[in-house]
Amino acid sequence: MHRIAVTDGLAEEAISHMKSKGYVVDEISFSKEQLNNGALSNYDAVIIRSATKLDKLAIESNSGGKLKVICRAGVGVDNIDINVATSNNIMVLNAPTSTTKSVAELTIGHLLSCTRFISKGDRLMRKGIWAKKDLRGSELSGKNLGLIGFGRIARNVSMLGNAFGMSIHAYDPYLPDELFGNATKHESLESLFSNCTHISVHCNLTSQTRNLIGKKLIDLMPLKGADGSNCGNYLVSLSRGGIVNESEIYQCLNSGKLKGVGLDVFETEPVIKNDLLNCDNFVATPHIAASTVEAQIRVGMESVSQIIMALDGEIPTNLLNKDLLN
Amino acid sequence: MHRIAVTDGLAEEAISHMKSKGYVVDEISFSKEQLNNGALSNYDAVIIRSATKLDKLAIESNSGGKLKVICRAGVGVDNIDINVATSNNIMVLNAPTSTTKSVAELTIGHLLSCTRFISKGDRLMRKGIWAKKDLRGSELSGKNLGLIGFGRIARNVSMLGNAFGMSIHAYDPYLPDELFGNATKHESLESLFSNCTHISVHCNLTSQTRNLIGKKLIDLMPLKGADGSNCGNYLVSLSRGGIVNESEIYQCLNSGKLKGVGLDVFETEPVIKNDLLNCDNFVATPHIAASTVEAQIRVGMESVSQIIMALDGEIPTNLLNKDLLN
Repeated sequence: MHRIAVTDGLAEEAISHMKSKGYVVDEISFSKEQLNNGALSNYDAVIIRSATKLDKLAIESNSGGKLKVICRAGVGVDNIDINVATSNNIMVLNAPTSTTKSVAELTIGHLLSCTRFISKGDRLMRKGIWAKKDLRGSELSGKNLGLIGFGRIARNVSMLGNAFGMSIHAYDPYLPDELFGNATKHESLESLFSNCTHISVHCNLTSQTRNLIGKKLIDLMPLKGADGSNCGNYLVSLSRGGIVNESEIYQCLNSGKLKGVGLDVFETEPVIKNDLLNCDNFVATPHIAASTVEAQIRVGMESVSQIIMALDGEIPTNLLNKDLLN
Repeated sequence: MHRIAVTDGLAEEAISHMKSKGYVVDEISFSKEQLNNGALSNYDAVIIRSATKLDKLAIESNSGGKLKVICRAGVGVDNIDINVATSNNIMVLNAPTSTTKSVAELTIGHLLSCTRFISKGDRLMRKGIWAKKDLRGSELSGKNLGLIGFGRIARNVSMLGNAFGMSIHAYDPYLPDELFGNATKHESLESLFSNCTHISVHCNLTSQTRNLIGKKLIDLMPLKGADGSNCGNYLVSLSRGGIVNESEIYQCLNSGKLKGVGLDVFETEPVIKNDLLNCDNFVATPHIAASTVEAQIRVGMESVSQIIMALDGEIPTNLLNKDLLN
């Protein structure tokens, strides 16, 4: 009988599914000391989120027992030493596709909130101000939407943008040409920004992308839409804080070079104080792009299905240390 | 040479277009007294919005001269006595298609703002509150979207909802079956509400639709999405104030029977004080669904193209008093 440890919580539906397969599931959290003393060695698999750190010592302390699978219920695996797992013959899995739709939907939500003054209109009405005449917005339809990074989420945003009648432009130096689909591929960020009134950030935070988006690029944006309308420029980011240079964005909002900005991610989180929060045409959400009931259930179910494949002797589709197969 | 009076403003682009056709365009407003004294009788056409009232007396006072066309730059023609225009051989035109996209886009914006707590998250962050854990939303994907009225705007919303992965349900007793397309047609509002967690109102305000949407119907909503998720119920309206019973909506929001409500239109406008504005999960905008630069230009251009057809002796596609053709 397979025993599974769930250390950082998981959707109920996923727990039930494992139980219905006859697995013994322990929802249990371990201290660093317990992890370093083989607390997982009696489990076939462990499902973690970001709270449990499985570094070299923790993994080595639990190898040699039953442990065959580490699954990250989510995307980021920076809390797992994958190389050490590989050399100890332990599979590392994740659940990267589960949050795609939620993030893509909120991206469009941020774009619409910016272009149509939804949050601003709501805020003013709660203050007793009927600002109808001051809130003339612009349509997404007919505009060029520039996507920085064209991975899974960006491609989902692109599909939604198409439905709104937007033309999709993308910059992603790591992506093979055939994955750009009907999007116009740009070879530089300068070219992307020069062509787009609407920009959405979908890349990872790395040393290359830190402070990538600032005044210099935004100055290139056309202000006038591809359809000829005077819509202004818009920027949204739901990827990682730090890619967008917040102090420069603040300047661009105040100068009118950006008409609206929506951020779900920030240089410092949680945000306590941030000048952007004093800007009228700024929309902030507290890092909730993946925070939906559906995404959380899907993350759990995707994790479980990966673990089932692994324990049934199949190759899990989300296996991250493919070296194990050699 | 044709002379056109523009009494309530019109997009610059539309004015220029008329001038480029050789028309003489007067941007001029008239008092009721002037209208009643034939101020329009020297014009071939007049373009009005909602401010100019062309009642029986006004129309009769201007007939017998050159006036052949009254064009409403917009949709609603309740400020024009069409029957009197007809008996005086004056065409009445409008521009009903120009605002469709803008309204449909804001409808999706309201839905996303409700389901993902965009305005609420923004408001809390401006107060210094990082409410990440309390703002678990839900996806539009996989849900049933119920549309009350399935005219032009609702069908545009349905296209967008489809892109988000929503199934479209519609109630419209006036629409021929073939126009329902891939939407599921319902024979009663009770049936529609029983099947949909997300409802958007797209009908006109008439004596039949006043206070149409209240607690009785909302109580039928399933709370659980078509995909099985516990998403809660949502209601948005961008059509006309008074169709949704605001005091009952307020009760439903407070009882949790509605998880989110978005309104662009209100029983009394402008809204000065309204209990709904104290609700956390309420999103308000000040009647701005058609208020985009693109829609306003399009309204102008559509109006002008209708007038050109009329003055060139063609039958304008948006002719409202078709009796004239008999």
